[in-house]
Amino acid sequence: MRAPLLAITMGDPAGVGPEIAVKALADERVQGACRPLLVGSAEVFAAAARIVGSGARIVPFTDPGAARWGPEYVNVAASETAPLAELPRGEVSAAAGAAGYHAIARAVELARAGTAAATVTGPIHKEALNLAGFRFAGQTEIYAHLTGTRDYAMLLMAGALRVVHVSTHVSLREACERVTRQRVETVIRLAHEAGRRLGIAAPRIGVAGLNPHAGDGGLFGSEERTQIVPAIEAARAAGMVVEGPLPADTLFPKANGGYYDLVVAMYHDQGHIPLKVVGFTWDNGAGVWSAVDGVNVTLGIPVIRVSVDHGTAFDVAGTGRASEDSMIQAILCAAQMARAGQPATGASSR
Amino acid sequence: MRAPLLAITMGDPAGVGPEIAVKALADERVQGACRPLLVGSAEVFAAAARIVGSGARIVPFTDPGAARWGPEYVNVAASETAPLAELPRGEVSAAAGAAGYHAIARAVELARAGTAAATVTGPIHKEALNLAGFRFAGQTEIYAHLTGTRDYAMLLMAGALRVVHVSTHVSLREACERVTRQRVETVIRLAHEAGRRLGIAAPRIGVAGLNPHAGDGGLFGSEERTQIVPAIEAARAAGMVVEGPLPADTLFPKANGGYYDLVVAMYHDQGHIPLKVVGFTWDNGAGVWSAVDGVNVTLGIPVIRVSVDHGTAFDVAGTGRASEDSMIQAILCAAQMARAGQPATGASSR
Repeated sequence: MRAPLLAITMGDPAGVGPEIAVKALADERVQGACRPLLVGSAEVFAAAARIVGSGARIVPFTDPGAARWGPEYVNVAASETAPLAELPRGEVSAAAGAAGYHAIARAVELARAGTAAATVTGPIHKEALNLAGFRFAGQTEIYAHLTGTRDYAMLLMAGALRVVHVSTHVSLREACERVTRQRVETVIRLAHEAGRRLGIAAPRIGVAGLNPHAGDGGLFGSEERTQIVPAIEAARAAGMVVEGPLPADTLFPKANGGYYDLVVAMYHDQGHIPLKVVGFTWDNGAGVWSAVDGVNVTLGIPVIRVSVDHGTAFDVAGTGRASEDSMIQAILCAAQMARAGQPATGASSR
Repeated sequence: MRAPLLAITMGDPAGVGPEIAVKALADERVQGACRPLLVGSAEVFAAAARIVGSGARIVPFTDPGAARWGPEYVNVAASETAPLAELPRGEVSAAAGAAGYHAIARAVELARAGTAAATVTGPIHKEALNLAGFRFAGQTEIYAHLTGTRDYAMLLMAGALRVVHVSTHVSLREACERVTRQRVETVIRLAHEAGRRLGIAAPRIGVAGLNPHAGDGGLFGSEERTQIVPAIEAARAAGMVVEGPLPADTLFPKANGGYYDLVVAMYHDQGHIPLKVVGFTWDNGAGVWSAVDGVNVTLGIPVIRVSVDHGTAFDVAGTGRASEDSMIQAILCAAQMARAGQPATGASSR
């Protein structure tokens, strides 16, 4: 079986995305696991290669048959962009935001056309995206929009944690509103399917409560009883292995110890805090993050999409110092999912 | 200077509290740091001593001068209780709930009378407490009630994390309501004072946002702008070292790396999740928690109170297997705070 072709976006060209993409392509595991195709501006990738000291040759991509693969080549599928030669690194700009968006759109096209078996995304900057007129809360929402998907969810992985979110980029008050029986049931199903696609026959899913102590028997809120319990019962009736609603503060360390294969988190910070405590390490002496582990998978969409789990890091963009670890993890995860087959969409898997 | 006398409550007598208290008294560091006085039922502590195989003698406490101290004695200050000889371990009961409450009340009395320099609490069971007619969300609230305190907050410590909470035992919707400028300012001040009492001259405090990405410039909620920023500005004007509002998911790993001395969390799970991910370790092979590190300090009340950071663990009560680590940490922390002096109350420190 041929290694899967992955479309890897540059992210916001003013950030570290182009650099970590080029650095990741020098990794043996990456070259062994896939045929990596970078998507974005050839000019930007050429600059990134100079910055990181890569000797690989930038090659315009036309079709998979004509392409040559291996660490000596950086194949680039061009996406729409204004000239970026003068692009100031480490700054928010509409031009960079637009170029970041169009790289995503091109990657999705490549995947939907069957040219790419999966997509991997570099970090974008939301403000730049907004300046360019693309009003999305994040890349997950862009993928949903581009693929016309309604039922999707964000799966984040770091350490032994795999967490799927009921909601993400909304206020905490709005997040409380989004905890509905139907949405929780959908997210449990998406978590179950993701576990299966990651090779777990009967994934054990722990579902967090919304309220502290999972509501403590109704003392602190009723969403557990009215929304979450019925969703769990429906998932169990459909044969899934589900426990909850559980107090989130003990659920996460237990999942990190391996007891749960996946966790369903009720809102952004409930899931992101434990993921980053596990995956991120702050080196206080050096004043830098010495590890930023973690990948982000969008569930429910008809293409595979895995993303780095960090931002554009404008403060180190252009220095070549940004770690490519998360990008390598994202590529390896996407390659694994691509070998396991295309994802089922929300609709077709029912 | 004489080692401080600490009043250590049994917690719910049907739980692991009495066992971990007796076990902790055998620890050299505990005996070196304080004169430990257990508060509760002598009968229950005698049973606990048998369970854990302690040869120490249970001695009724009358006054500090008459007491003999050392690992061969378990001094017990009796508190009100129904006969507990037939008490079923590992079960919720009104009798156990009432006895747990009265041990707390007696410990607070001992502290307010100056007999005890600090108090340490074992775990209680809220349902038992409620069954007994004591309708409190937790021990923190009992202390506030017994001391007539309005402005208090829960400080939890585990690993390098020290986290003070704007709210704790309320629904998440109610927690959103509790994020007011005044309350956040009070909690920043309590965090600052706690840092000073722990020996940090100018504690660096990181304040979390309420919403994901700390509201992302107003895209996801407005509490950061309307409530949290003004509170931070007021605290800075008063000379405190405060940063924020910060996205909670990166704030906590950075604090765990040592960048912040204290963190102000906006609600229960925002603080408790990272604390327990850092402090709790699940051993999936053995099916047990192999570490439950963490202590809980109530700030703002006129007595020192430190608590274990775990529950009654009814499933292992009576077996002697519960770890006394958290109890030892709580005792050592209380002894340190007692040596540093009585806490300022919210009112007097303004």
